[in-house]
Amino acid sequence: MSYRTGFTAASVPGGNLGVQARKFLSKKVFNTRYTAEMANIGFIGLGIMGKPMAGHLIKGRHALFLYSRSGVPEELLKQGGNACSSPVEVAQSSDVIITMLPEAKDVEQVLFGDKGIACGLGSTLPNANLHEPKTIVDMSSISPIETRHFAERIGRLGCDYMDAPVSGGDIGARNGTLTIMVGASEEVFQRVLPVLELMGQTITRIGNIGSGQICKISNQIIVALTIEAVGEGLLFASKAGADPVKVREALLGGFAASRVLDVHGGRMIRNAFEPGFRIELHQKDLGIALSNARAMGISLPNTASVQEMFNACVAHGDSKLDSSAVVKVLEKLANHEIQSSQS
Amino acid sequence: MSYRTGFTAASVPGGNLGVQARKFLSKKVFNTRYTAEMANIGFIGLGIMGKPMAGHLIKGRHALFLYSRSGVPEELLKQGGNACSSPVEVAQSSDVIITMLPEAKDVEQVLFGDKGIACGLGSTLPNANLHEPKTIVDMSSISPIETRHFAERIGRLGCDYMDAPVSGGDIGARNGTLTIMVGASEEVFQRVLPVLELMGQTITRIGNIGSGQICKISNQIIVALTIEAVGEGLLFASKAGADPVKVREALLGGFAASRVLDVHGGRMIRNAFEPGFRIELHQKDLGIALSNARAMGISLPNTASVQEMFNACVAHGDSKLDSSAVVKVLEKLANHEIQSSQS
Amino acid sequence: MSYRTGFTAASVPGGNLGVQARKFLSKKVFNTRYTAEMANIGFIGLGIMGKPMAGHLIKGRHALFLYSRSGVPEELLKQGGNACSSPVEVAQSSDVIITMLPEAKDVEQVLFGDKGIACGLGSTLPNANLHEPKTIVDMSSISPIETRHFAERIGRLGCDYMDAPVSGGDIGARNGTLTIMVGASEEVFQRVLPVLELMGQTITRIGNIGSGQICKISNQIIVALTIEAVGEGLLFASKAGADPVKVREALLGGFAASRVLDVHGGRMIRNAFEPGFRIELHQKDLGIALSNARAMGISLPNTASVQEMFNACVAHGDSKLDSSAVVKVLEKLANHEIQSSQS
Amino acid sequence: MSYRTGFTAASVPGGNLGVQARKFLSKKVFNTRYTAEMANIGFIGLGIMGKPMAGHLIKGRHALFLYSRSGVPEELLKQGGNACSSPVEVAQSSDVIITMLPEAKDVEQVLFGDKGIACGLGSTLPNANLHEPKTIVDMSSISPIETRHFAERIGRLGCDYMDAPVSGGDIGARNGTLTIMVGASEEVFQRVLPVLELMGQTITRIGNIGSGQICKISNQIIVALTIEAVGEGLLFASKAGADPVKVREALLGGFAASRVLDVHGGRMIRNAFEPGFRIELHQKDLGIALSNARAMGISLPNTASVQEMFNACVAHGDSKLDSSAVVKVLEKLANHEIQSSQS
Repeated sequence: MSYRTGFTAASVPGGNLGVQARKFLSKKVFNTRYTAEMANIGFIGLGIMGKPMAGHLIKGRHALFLYSRSGVPEELLKQGGNACSSPVEVAQSSDVIITMLPEAKDVEQVLFGDKGIACGLGSTLPNANLHEPKTIVDMSSISPIETRHFAERIGRLGCDYMDAPVSGGDIGARNGTLTIMVGASEEVFQRVLPVLELMGQTITRIGNIGSGQICKISNQIIVALTIEAVGEGLLFASKAGADPVKVREALLGGFAASRVLDVHGGRMIRNAFEPGFRIELHQKDLGIALSNARAMGISLPNTASVQEMFNACVAHGDSKLDSSAVVKVLEKLANHEIQSSQS
Repeated sequence: MSYRTGFTAASVPGGNLGVQARKFLSKKVFNTRYTAEMANIGFIGLGIMGKPMAGHLIKGRHALFLYSRSGVPEELLKQGGNACSSPVEVAQSSDVIITMLPEAKDVEQVLFGDKGIACGLGSTLPNANLHEPKTIVDMSSISPIETRHFAERIGRLGCDYMDAPVSGGDIGARNGTLTIMVGASEEVFQRVLPVLELMGQTITRIGNIGSGQICKISNQIIVALTIEAVGEGLLFASKAGADPVKVREALLGGFAASRVLDVHGGRMIRNAFEPGFRIELHQKDLGIALSNARAMGISLPNTASVQEMFNACVAHGDSKLDSSAVVKVLEKLANHEIQSSQS
Repeated sequence: MSYRTGFTAASVPGGNLGVQARKFLSKKVFNTRYTAEMANIGFIGLGIMGKPMAGHLIKGRHALFLYSRSGVPEELLKQGGNACSSPVEVAQSSDVIITMLPEAKDVEQVLFGDKGIACGLGSTLPNANLHEPKTIVDMSSISPIETRHFAERIGRLGCDYMDAPVSGGDIGARNGTLTIMVGASEEVFQRVLPVLELMGQTITRIGNIGSGQICKISNQIIVALTIEAVGEGLLFASKAGADPVKVREALLGGFAASRVLDVHGGRMIRNAFEPGFRIELHQKDLGIALSNARAMGISLPNTASVQEMFNACVAHGDSKLDSSAVVKVLEKLANHEIQSSQS
Repeated sequence: MSYRTGFTAASVPGGNLGVQARKFLSKKVFNTRYTAEMANIGFIGLGIMGKPMAGHLIKGRHALFLYSRSGVPEELLKQGGNACSSPVEVAQSSDVIITMLPEAKDVEQVLFGDKGIACGLGSTLPNANLHEPKTIVDMSSISPIETRHFAERIGRLGCDYMDAPVSGGDIGARNGTLTIMVGASEEVFQRVLPVLELMGQTITRIGNIGSGQICKISNQIIVALTIEAVGEGLLFASKAGADPVKVREALLGGFAASRVLDVHGGRMIRNAFEPGFRIELHQKDLGIALSNARAMGISLPNTASVQEMFNACVAHGDSKLDSSAVVKVLEKLANHEIQSSQS
């Protein structure tokens, strides 16, 4: 199985697609981390997240085949990336095709639309002695239900699928320190892991297909509701007459301790709401949570409640602020702004 | 500075109340931590929390004057504590009077009721060279609004008041590792601090009178809502088909990380709801939060929502379970119990 | 049983308590409405509601014995009412003692406090050949749980108890058109009914003691939540671009039809929030609902939600407005005020 | 006024589409109600609602051109309806094209998909002396935002658009007593009104395009929340120990009075949850409400709360029950079922 093991640099003469095609190596021995060398990796969606992620893969000495509706950033081309004219061309050129797109409908379009990835999955690389199927790695944050539908359709085409949404924001993307939550078979996970490691720091296989998206949603629920919880607690303290700075410090030593109390609590007290993670994105994610919950018969009362607060943020023009700005809704209701007696 | 340093046994002639009465003195030098030696300390309320707390004070070589409606535990008497027949007798014998009672109405009764503390605040100890007023230290978890009323009435009697509610539960009380949140002037705080240090590990002066109670409520709000948040997140993950064990592990590495996700999240997954902190107590505390919020014009939507879930727990006979059992309400709604695919 | 039947005007010589004591007649035949003539009726609590209610009783030719902490209104004395110096005096002079007070603690004070009603229940009228026990009729809106406690204590004194809270506001009180919801035995209900009929239009015995208060709370829950429902519906319509005037009209013809859509919906559209029924009173009633729900293990998610909105109203100084002003909270959240395109 | 009055059979030569094609004309005189005689009407979507509605139009002597994905019901053909093979054929044959479909995506497909209505809007009837553009009348209950998008696209094709969602359920459809809420220009409304009158009883033009859908959503919000309100009120009454039958009766006389308290309240007490209007449909409608609210920056806290309760109904297999069955969620939470003491 040359694709994974017996492959040498010599056997990789370079592609004839007008690009330098390198190989993607992997060991089938689980728990053995290998030093990935060269693979043909497609990357579709080169926005604020996708662009630096693709950059890390180029730096990792992979051959990148790039597509973005708004054009491939010049910077990535200078680094050595290859621009493609359509998703199908990306798929034809690549062993692993990564998608990093805003919404499920975008993923569907790129996968199954006109000139979509699905049309290019049958092709093999010219000099390929590949025995591994091509693998779709969707790193977008979308619905697990739709993820499973996509994976099923891709599976019928003989290819593998992995959902691998991330958290960590654009800073994590730039620094290659994303948290990546993976839904895939163990085999597919091990095969793609070296690629993911170029982009992320904490990479966990949660379970089979869809589990990465589920975990991401679970994360977004807990983070949103914890932010709101900290908002209610600090607002109460402030309007009741205690110094929220002191309260936050004291609570960080007890059961209320959380990264959110630390980070977002600090933002609330300093009234500093530059993102971070924008309300409009958090709102999109809670939207996925609630629509999936509805489809699966799950009742999420406080997730629904926080989503309505996010709506109020949007109504006041705060959709681009950090999601800790949800506290501004509570402040409006209480007719009081959190303030430290020390300032 | 006898109380702190130059204090000799000779200068402590012993009391005439059938007990060895020592003086509790203090210097007004702030930020100077003193090694408390011997003071006359009253302690009213000797339940599951109060009893071990009073025990630590006796071990700390203070003279304890004890009262409890249900009688003073034999154990404390054997340790050297002195039983009193009423709050007024406690007040007469003590420089610092600690109360540790279930509800505000109990505190009010003990302070201002028949044979209450207030009746004994005028007295001085026989051989007193006291320059400090007597100090009430209410360690109960009650309303900050009522706390301020009590403090005002005590103040009119020429005495000091401190609210010093705790968190950490009966385990913290037994181990002397409570978190103590203090509302008092800096002067009173410094004077009483050595006494508090015998019972707690993290002791923070949040601000002036009432601030301790406010901080405690803020804590209870955030903890309750974070528990519920973790419940929504893990339930979603489980019913959607991901392993909650894996999800919890993955999320502990990111922004969802909290002590609650760690501790209470673990309880939810193991279906292990022995307290910990009982729902009925958490419900009492949220009741204080909501009544104070109403009085002060604060809107706490998700606190109110969780309180109604606690009601549902009570309706199903779960009031003695740990407050992480609130997830059982979510499980009932979703007709699904959180379970690990590993078990 | 002279009290009810064989009683003649001749046998009523007038009292010797410095007041004209008349008899309270009743028939034991159920469903037979009698024309009440003369009874000694106590009335405690002569505020915006109590004053006109007592006035109707005087006009109904009963002898009224009046007490109010802030003094008996001159107007009632001119009409022929008798001022008493304490609740106990009222109780001594009356067969039926009505209380109309703000809160349960007021009722408790008037019933069982110093110089309270309970102290006067043993007495009989000077020339009485009474065989009926005195009856307490509490028309305040208070907790059913406390009501049952009060009734039990009154019962131990050999007297009857009825809870008879009202709805209809001060207008209903002035016009004698209150809705009265009664909790009492059928026998007590029939005995007191003629008196109630002087004050109210729709008088229903809901069930035994406490049922009147329960019904009142149920009413306040439904009214508050329906108001909020209409608020969400009309606000949605308005911000989405439809004329709320047209929407309200159309909906009044279908399943959304309610008195609230008619009356309160109209207020929302006209931005006319003079009470009506004040938010601070509605908030008090929902407070009773929620505390009773908590005590009885009932989860009322949307009642709790609306209560928090009322808190927000209070925070913005709107506590004296009609409870339809809760829509202002929704308007704040949506950053939009309901408006008709016709205006 | 030939269309309304002077229209003779002679002027209707019959169509050449294998059907008798009659003209649908209109005068622009507003406020003049005309007696519709014969028009070519398309009807797409012949389910539980659409079938009887189309039947009424046939009985009203219009020529009906029918299409349904699952085939045209035999019954309608026997009545004289004409089956078409696609939406485009319907559009070619008709002056007014009515759609009655489950969801926005169905409407979009039928309007703009392959062989969709849009492809047939350019055609005129053979012997047309038409001066009016063809008109799309969407009677589905869908999003107002999408409605406006559809209308804009139809407008660009030179045709008119009306949204005319209904309430009243299948019973109303069969009896021709639907409530119809119309969004259209006054001109278009007047032109189509006679057709609508064959299907509905109360027909209101709410405003311009989209307003019908907005009004329908507003209705669904208010009805859902009022049902839940009644559920909270009656459940409280029942568990607190009062007879919900008596409570409902009493409240029907006051401010809590509503059709919902009457109808749905009765269902709750009788535990009789046959629809009526099914939870799954109400849930779909609240889904539209919440997604539109999110898009427009409106916060609907209690709508969101009730939607999560509907999710719980679905989780327990109750999605086909009447939406009054939402009370079962409250009953589960309180561990108590509403019951009359009379039964």
